Amino acid sequence: MICGRTPEELLCEIQGFHGFVAPGLLIGAFMIDKAYKVIDKTIEADAIVETKHCLPDALQIFTPCTVGNGWLKILDLDKFALTLYDRHTLDGFRIWLDLDKAKNHPNIYNWFMGLVSKKDLPKDILIDAIFKAGSDILSWEKIHVVQYGSREKKGAINVCDLCHEAHAASQGKTCFACQGHSYYDRLVMA
Amino acid sequence: MICGRTPEELLCEIQGFHGFVAPGLLIGAFMIDKAYKVIDKTIEADAIVETKHCLPDALQIFTPCTVGNGWLKILDLDKFALTLYDRHTLDGFRIWLDLDKAKNHPNIYNWFMGLVSKKDLPKDILIDAIFKAGSDILSWEKIHVVQYGSREKKGAINVCDLCHEAHAASQGKTCFACQGHSYYDRLVMA
Repeated sequence: MICGRTPEELLCEIQGFHGFVAPGLLIGAFMIDKAYKVIDKTIEADAIVETKHCLPDALQIFTPCTVGNGWLKILDLDKFALTLYDRHTLDGFRIWLDLDKAKNHPNIYNWFMGLVSKKDLPKDILIDAIFKAGSDILSWEKIHVVQYGSREKKGAINVCDLCHEAHAASQGKTCFACQGHSYYDRLVMA
Repeated sequence: MICGRTPEELLCEIQGFHGFVAPGLLIGAFMIDKAYKVIDKTIEADAIVETKHCLPDALQIFTPCTVGNGWLKILDLDKFALTLYDRHTLDGFRIWLDLDKAKNHPNIYNWFMGLVSKKDLPKDILIDAIFKAGSDILSWEKIHVVQYGSREKKGAINVCDLCHEAHAASQGKTCFACQGHSYYDRLVMA
């Protein structure tokens, strides 16, 4: 069992949430399984993930931590690593894909480093290799979180002078979007 | 039916993924339901959400878009609004909680603006008010996404000179974390 699931259940849940079976999510399941084995089970663990690609979904599927509930923080360090930590003491474990260990599993290494095409490495062979490798390709270390570790509280709310929508009062009298940080142009409704 | 679910199914899925029934997620379900009604159903819709609080989880539960698959972008504008758009033409609809309309539903307005304590407005009464209001508290507009609209492709990979972990080659010869942007101190393993 990995994260309390059979291999079939794992793949089914990844497919259901992520839209397709991403190999990185399956490795993520093994990372989380390992993290829960080394961390004190009685604590309430929050999570930090070091990439926005793939791996956040593993945490959202296999732990209670999500982006929306604020228990998962996503850092854009672009590293295939995650941390589960006690949200009160900020002590926890960081788990990462260890390239030196992954070299013993050439299909995984070559896929991860972008050295092989999808055509030359069919996904079912890669998935099989990941199940066989399990936690053999991972390393972990005990760490203390020194930033991004605390849960954010919502502050005071303001109604924007221009768009009349609510936003954080810390942004000022107009919202960030009306200050020029928006992402869209309005179109006339048909 | 909202997002193809009965009210009971909606609440159950919110509880299961988010950990608790957050009123904002239920409003999010009505926002997404409305978006899917106005947008062309044949298109492949990506999503942008304007806050990291709560609402990203509604999109992750009720649409195929997740953070990890890259179809959902989270902007930290701190506004209770979301956009679903055609990822090819970048045309779409933005939906937001309209405060002027919400004023007709005082329990929702007072909760959203932080004007009432949890003690004075029990959650079941608030949830009931949200179901009754449905899309009455929402407004929407047709928009064209001008940034953050395209899916990111992973670029070249480098192995960091210092930590020997993989990272985006665009960061240089050492990864961002080793350049001083890390979030943890190492502890000696017991």
